[in-house]
Amino acid sequence: MSYLQEEIYAQPDVLRGLLAQQSGSIEQIATQIRAYQPRFVVIAARGTSDNAARYAKYLFEIQLSLPVSLAAPSVNTLYEAQPNTAGALVIGISQSGQSADVRQVIADAKANGALTLAITNYDDSPLAQSADHHINLCAGEEKSVAATKTYTTELTVIACLIQHIAQNDAALSRLEQVPDDVAVALSHAETLEAWIRHFSYVERLAVIGRGYNYATAFEISLKIKELCYIVGEQYSEADFRHGPIAIVSPRFPIIAIAPQGKTLSLMLDLLEQLKAKEASCIVLSDSQDVLDQFEYSVALPQDVPEWLMPICAVIPGQFFAYNLALAKGYDVDQPRGLNKVTITH
Amino acid sequence: MSYLQEEIYAQPDVLRGLLAQQSGSIEQIATQIRAYQPRFVVIAARGTSDNAARYAKYLFEIQLSLPVSLAAPSVNTLYEAQPNTAGALVIGISQSGQSADVRQVIADAKANGALTLAITNYDDSPLAQSADHHINLCAGEEKSVAATKTYTTELTVIACLIQHIAQNDAALSRLEQVPDDVAVALSHAETLEAWIRHFSYVERLAVIGRGYNYATAFEISLKIKELCYIVGEQYSEADFRHGPIAIVSPRFPIIAIAPQGKTLSLMLDLLEQLKAKEASCIVLSDSQDVLDQFEYSVALPQDVPEWLMPICAVIPGQFFAYNLALAKGYDVDQPRGLNKVTITH
Repeated sequence: MSYLQEEIYAQPDVLRGLLAQQSGSIEQIATQIRAYQPRFVVIAARGTSDNAARYAKYLFEIQLSLPVSLAAPSVNTLYEAQPNTAGALVIGISQSGQSADVRQVIADAKANGALTLAITNYDDSPLAQSADHHINLCAGEEKSVAATKTYTTELTVIACLIQHIAQNDAALSRLEQVPDDVAVALSHAETLEAWIRHFSYVERLAVIGRGYNYATAFEISLKIKELCYIVGEQYSEADFRHGPIAIVSPRFPIIAIAPQGKTLSLMLDLLEQLKAKEASCIVLSDSQDVLDQFEYSVALPQDVPEWLMPICAVIPGQFFAYNLALAKGYDVDQPRGLNKVTITH
Repeated sequence: MSYLQEEIYAQPDVLRGLLAQQSGSIEQIATQIRAYQPRFVVIAARGTSDNAARYAKYLFEIQLSLPVSLAAPSVNTLYEAQPNTAGALVIGISQSGQSADVRQVIADAKANGALTLAITNYDDSPLAQSADHHINLCAGEEKSVAATKTYTTELTVIACLIQHIAQNDAALSRLEQVPDDVAVALSHAETLEAWIRHFSYVERLAVIGRGYNYATAFEISLKIKELCYIVGEQYSEADFRHGPIAIVSPRFPIIAIAPQGKTLSLMLDLLEQLKAKEASCIVLSDSQDVLDQFEYSVALPQDVPEWLMPICAVIPGQFFAYNLALAKGYDVDQPRGLNKVTITH
């Protein structure tokens, strides 16, 4: 068994462990954030962790009305400028906690008088050591270069933190079930093994999501790029209509994340357009009605609230990338040209 | 002559007209923004205008130390939430001024007590009418579906506004020369007609920039998608190393925006890696030394400060997309599946 496969399947247990070990300390940090009353939030991250930051942006803005800026670390590193983050909550997310540029954003924010928080997989990492607070992902060592369990733990930490800040007990209690939802998502995702070979010809594709699942589109696309060396575009349903939709020709493959909720009608409207262009649509949804309309589809678990769905919806994407890489005969644990820890400046 | 070609070549004159007509009113708006003392900035935009917003993010953060959040309009429209923008400057950018979602962000911000500004091409557009202040792009009607002159006018308005807020007279006086720089960029860009046919086989490519030219990478990639139906990726040099670099195989085409300045050494380091992977690199630079290292290159104008270079660096990208579309036999004024005004919700 590859490390990647092992780590994909470990996710329900890893999430259970995370919630059991970290809920208390996340609650304490949330209490301090409430007391600080941040005016806005800045999040610095790269790669997979930046996709988790995208999820955090929607959740902070929708649930807490706190505007979120995703940091451009080169402002701090290359241009040596310091955006004034006094009164802000500044979060750095990094699996390894080694990223020099993310660390610089946190160091500058601390000097500015912001409240700083690191989310990493290692208590003794430089990023964890430099922030006022640290939340450990408790994901165990991630041996595969492509991140899977550290992504879903990052999302879970973010969801848990924000619902603690909101003091939303109903949401927190619902969050406890998410490891079971992920287990269901895993079993549904296996069904794509039956038809994945139809996509082994693929050299480019697009992944479309919107709202909370905008982050999911980015993360699925990144997994496909990392593991299958395919040019994968990622878009919100709205941005895709503003130009990039021009690329779609017959058989162009598109993965659409279309769970029930606020985004579904717009996603379905776009899917109609894509069908008319004879695109090959792969649809992820928790609506049987939607699934039945498409030849290639993967069921998402039932009765998952919209804000938690991204933790489940990425699973078929991880499976898709993993199985497509196998079909193409690639090394899934050590993709060409990548290292586990990327240090950027 | 196509509208697109006409509009590409009109840019120096359009920029001259803009600066002549709008500098005074931009200065007045800047004075009001200074008096307001915003804590942070939120910018809402889609498509090409969103790429102008990316440029604005770097310029606000580096020159004015004001953190910038690029709005996710679906937070306001689909989820009906209102991020608390009290004390912020909230900017909506839209060529047509018709975008319903950008307008919603401005309306909500106004209700929140933020200072609002619209940047559009029409004084009587709904977006212009709904904001506290409006800056007209003075670009004249843009008949081609793919935006060119409205992009460079958006960048120029942003640069002019920010340097007026900064009361940086030297920068403002340098800005006056940018129409001439763009004229030089246009004449250099024509040189790519000599070798563009070597890329007519291309079905996918990546565009890499960093810092101020992160926006340029996005905008060049969008033009190529819109006009040539090619899957174009866009990345910062740092993000590209965090995974997507795995897609690069021999002859994979990459456009690198590598002008002199803070980002050059990192861009050159990445280009070395890409050369080792036998990628086909197309390099845009104002350094003869850099240009000489690559078979396919386009000179950028000399002595343009780094913060103004994006207004020039997009020009060879517009030319590349335009000439590649011609080489492929496509209609450059009316790309398939696109309308000039896209209304999203």
